[in-house]
Amino acid sequence: MPIVRVEMWPGRTHEQKAELARAITEAVVRIAKTTPEATIVVFEDVAKENWAQAGVLASEA
Amino acid sequence: MPIVRVEMWPGRTHEQKAELARAITEAVVRIAKTTPEATIVVFEDVAKENWAQAGVLASEA
Amino acid sequence: MPIVRVEMWPGRTHEQKAELARAITEAVVRIAKTTPEATIVVFEDVAKENWAQAGVLASEA
Amino acid sequence: MPIVRVEMWPGRTHEQKAELARAITEAVVRIAKTTPEATIVVFEDVAKENWAQAGVLASEA
Amino acid sequence: MPIVRVEMWPGRTHEQKAELARAITEAVVRIAKTTPEATIVVFEDVAKENWAQAGVLASEA
Amino acid sequence: MPIVRVEMWPGRTHEQKAELARAITEAVVRIAKTTPEATIVVFEDVAKENWAQAGVLASEA
Repeated sequence: MPIVRVEMWPGRTHEQKAELARAITEAVVRIAKTTPEATIVVFEDVAKENWAQAGVLASEA
Repeated sequence: MPIVRVEMWPGRTHEQKAELARAITEAVVRIAKTTPEATIVVFEDVAKENWAQAGVLASEA
Repeated sequence: MPIVRVEMWPGRTHEQKAELARAITEAVVRIAKTTPEATIVVFEDVAKENWAQAGVLASEA
Repeated sequence: MPIVRVEMWPGRTHEQKAELARAITEAVVRIAKTTPEATIVVFEDVAKENWAQAGVLASEA
Repeated sequence: MPIVRVEMWPGRTHEQKAELARAITEAVVRIAKTTPEATIVVFEDVAKENWAQAGVLASEA
Repeated sequence: MPIVRVEMWPGRTHEQKAELARAITEAVVRIAKTTPEATIVVFEDVAKENWAQAGVLASEA
């Protein structure tokens, strides 16, 4: 069942996402005692102009 | 109130989304006893390189 | 792949959720051309005091 | 901690998002008694052909 | 259309959520040029043991 | 920025969540080149009667 959703700023390579999917799945399987097949990882790129902290868009910080 | 969110790989036509929105809304209204006006359906396309199962990106599987 | 997320107010029976999962999955498989096994439906109950429209909580409307 | 997620149709300017991030953060900090630094706002643009009400895509309404 | 989702730690009163829904809706309507009726706000309480920063659960920090 | 969201069935101990938060954060920091402080992990327990695959609720499978 585990569904893992990762929101990050754009800029990560396909390679980095592949490695991240592998590492997160490995951690979930080992610690939460599930199977790799049951583990889904979804990436969402969030542009800097769509993300604010302390009321300031990251594209302006 | 019901808000339905559908994440799928890209590639479905506008037609398919329109038909899916209609069919899901019909099912929600009939089974959950709500109104069509109160039922919202949101689609999100998830690229294959942003989705992994068993630690492998779908773009590499 | 399709992941469908359904947010509704509490109060639907287990039976209604089972029927809804069946009907939504059937629609997704038929219209989006995928397999039942690849289709996941997740329900989330949202209490009326956690949901507002037009700035008014549903628990006060 | 507060994470605020705003889904809107496309078309808002960078300016509007900046102002919205500021106003929402101000409200959250003042009313929920938290700090600006702990408050994150994420915008997601949802295309009209990805959003339906009453079973009809907004792009067709 | 705007759907606003607010994740916070538990502990806010019903009053605070009501005021927050009002203030956020007012800001969205004013800045994003939409109507109150089209604006939905959903709150989600996230327990401190379900939230981590820097790898440490908030319940342990 | 990275926000990681982990949906799992209930039953994981506080210990398992703490270890998972640590391992996921470590992986994200190492592979996506970010800082621990910028990395947030949120867990959501999804009851088996709220989760279906192939149209069948997990509580009935």
